[in-house]
Amino acid sequence: MKTMPKGLLVVLSGPSGAGKGTVCQLLRQRNPHLAYSVSATTRSPRPGEKHGVNYFFLKREEFEAWRDRGEFLEWAEFCGNLYGTPRSYVEERLASGQDVLLEIETQGALQIRASFPTGVFIFLLPPSWAELKARIIQRGTESEEERRRRLAKAESEIAMLRAYDYLVINDRVEQAVARVEAILMAEHARVNRFSDEELKAQLEGQLL
Amino acid sequence: MKTMPKGLLVVLSGPSGAGKGTVCQLLRQRNPHLAYSVSATTRSPRPGEKHGVNYFFLKREEFEAWRDRGEFLEWAEFCGNLYGTPRSYVEERLASGQDVLLEIETQGALQIRASFPTGVFIFLLPPSWAELKARIIQRGTESEEERRRRLAKAESEIAMLRAYDYLVINDRVEQAVARVEAILMAEHARVNRFSDEELKAQLEGQLL
Repeated sequence: MKTMPKGLLVVLSGPSGAGKGTVCQLLRQRNPHLAYSVSATTRSPRPGEKHGVNYFFLKREEFEAWRDRGEFLEWAEFCGNLYGTPRSYVEERLASGQDVLLEIETQGALQIRASFPTGVFIFLLPPSWAELKARIIQRGTESEEERRRRLAKAESEIAMLRAYDYLVINDRVEQAVARVEAILMAEHARVNRFSDEELKAQLEGQLL
Repeated sequence: MKTMPKGLLVVLSGPSGAGKGTVCQLLRQRNPHLAYSVSATTRSPRPGEKHGVNYFFLKREEFEAWRDRGEFLEWAEFCGNLYGTPRSYVEERLASGQDVLLEIETQGALQIRASFPTGVFIFLLPPSWAELKARIIQRGTESEEERRRRLAKAESEIAMLRAYDYLVINDRVEQAVARVEAILMAEHARVNRFSDEELKAQLEGQLL
């Protein structure tokens, strides 16, 4: 009997300004087999962002209705906006053996950890504080006050780093993506991800 | 203050016939920064093997003298021959921040685990039992009886797989090496390998 390998849940998180979006974009381009879970949010789209591609952009009432029907795997309020991860897509993809990538704020990431202890939790950081500040200011789509809030928030988020499995420094996006790819390859090779049946099948040459 | 990153101890093990030697050779070619610890053994050199390069080929009395002076990190008897890992080289390289690669029999690997709980333990397997048998027979440098012993031994070694961190299938050597490289890159990114000081230095842009 061939055992179905389970998909990996990969959570990419980190402070605002770490470059989560850019890293995820290149990662998905280079790994089209990675299922990408689109999050829902009540924040306004940034220029170029599309509904159903970057986020599901919801009105607050819509978001709360989804949430109250239990349709989020996690949700969090972040700088006055709500963010959530639709549950069914993630669970279906994992069950079918596909790896699923979540790009997610730090509060939400830790909620996911509770339901998916075997998930792979990656914390993305810019190469320095100075760089983080510069990126948040450069983004320039939020108000001055929102920027200040994001910086303060970043500081408190970094304190949560110990709850993650991996730290990836986003110095150059290609290098950060290569590190995430290496982490995925390594995690697929971890002995404790194989059941006894899978190991036995492996030895009999039925797997891979 | 810049904290010195510690080197990783990487132990590549697996049953006889898994292709440890071939994988190590290509891995070292592609990663010249990897310190390679040459083992000592009392077995006879195979064609092409060189003293001080593939192994330190010792007479049994010499081996026992080294062992009795505490000069081995681990040693084991395997199919009538003694194998051991000289201690000083490994400890010096790790302390200087270099990654060290050990290619080692399974008994010895588990002894190393006791002294280096943070080491990275990789179990190499051929793609199937049939393939393992073919490789052991093909090697053809041992007697018929030694081959039978090696096969029986391989079976019992595989039972130890759960004590390792990673399982790498050696279907094609290039692919096996790429997997080991990914494991090394991932392990360097593991949060629990950083001290609080290193994380702080990272945030202040002093590291990397």
